[in-house]
Amino acid sequence: MASNGHESIPDIVIGRLPIYLRALNRLAEEGQEITSSHELGQRLGISSAQIRKDLSHFGGFGKQGTGYQIGYLQEKLRKVLNIEQEWEVALVGIGDLGKAIAHYRGFGDRGFHIACLFDSDPDKVGQTVGDFTIQPLSDLPAAIESKNIRLAMVAVPAPYAQEVTDLLVKAGIKGILNYAPINLSVPAGVQVQYIDPVVGLQRMTFYLND
Amino acid sequence: MASNGHESIPDIVIGRLPIYLRALNRLAEEGQEITSSHELGQRLGISSAQIRKDLSHFGGFGKQGTGYQIGYLQEKLRKVLNIEQEWEVALVGIGDLGKAIAHYRGFGDRGFHIACLFDSDPDKVGQTVGDFTIQPLSDLPAAIESKNIRLAMVAVPAPYAQEVTDLLVKAGIKGILNYAPINLSVPAGVQVQYIDPVVGLQRMTFYLND
Repeated sequence: MASNGHESIPDIVIGRLPIYLRALNRLAEEGQEITSSHELGQRLGISSAQIRKDLSHFGGFGKQGTGYQIGYLQEKLRKVLNIEQEWEVALVGIGDLGKAIAHYRGFGDRGFHIACLFDSDPDKVGQTVGDFTIQPLSDLPAAIESKNIRLAMVAVPAPYAQEVTDLLVKAGIKGILNYAPINLSVPAGVQVQYIDPVVGLQRMTFYLND
Repeated sequence: MASNGHESIPDIVIGRLPIYLRALNRLAEEGQEITSSHELGQRLGISSAQIRKDLSHFGGFGKQGTGYQIGYLQEKLRKVLNIEQEWEVALVGIGDLGKAIAHYRGFGDRGFHIACLFDSDPDKVGQTVGDFTIQPLSDLPAAIESKNIRLAMVAVPAPYAQEVTDLLVKAGIKGILNYAPINLSVPAGVQVQYIDPVVGLQRMTFYLND
């Protein structure tokens, strides 16, 4: 399933690359030009050995003792993650959460922009959020196919998330970021990632005493 | 920093335990009683060897060939993650995103409930969201100290996220789930986790061809 000529990289490593890229972006913003697996590890709570091993899959980053060139590594990771191009994303469900996502300032130059908004509520259809007009779900298949959109975010209430997902998959969506607290069923070849605040909270309670 | 008598478990393993627990909860909901590292791996895109290795840190789960008892494993992971008790969480920033979080149905019986809401906007203070009345930021220190709250979610706009964080830390908060697209500085002993949709999207574009 992997593209980019990196077929052999484990999915779990791929999952860490966006985290590395985010840390590198922050270091660059802070004016730094060189970093080390040790510094990245300290920031991320990942062992420096793990970081060196992960990055070694892509060959030729830095040398023992000289550190990583941040600019070079950012460019390389962007290329590996396929975000040198900008991806259009459809957003379904324009309640409180959908509005917050539509206004989210973190997409920036990180490879994505929201290209269309959908909601099933006739009262919302036609309203404007940011630069976009909310379209009815009935427009979704044609809009996604005509713009050749491959990614979608699902921000509808849990009871509607599966049927919206089915509609998205039928329209050609290949990757879904799901905010609803349910497990989505998708056919092979379609990916789902979950935004789940409880996972972040549970990760912290491990370290808290009662 | 680790509690629970599991001082030697790497943080990266801890980070995967909530993911395992979520998958187990789903299997249990589907009526299943036994699972395998192979089945979990298939669902999660993590190798079964990795899963067996991660779970072996806690000793005595299942036997080669007999699979894992889902109920036992759920209970054990809840204990390890310290969520047998329920944690109260403060929520700061009741804009669109904060409202969506306050209404989120995914906290359920997963160890957390929102205990108080704060916003700096005088027009919002006193309004009700769900069961809660929005309190002014000036009430935050006393409210958090009197309830002995240790966890908070930050859903304010990025320019305010650091000052809100400083206020939370001063009030005794030890873990922050940050929705704002900026890096937070916190003193040693305070943890931060990030909710970042771009990380989920980038993880999927790796697998997409142009």
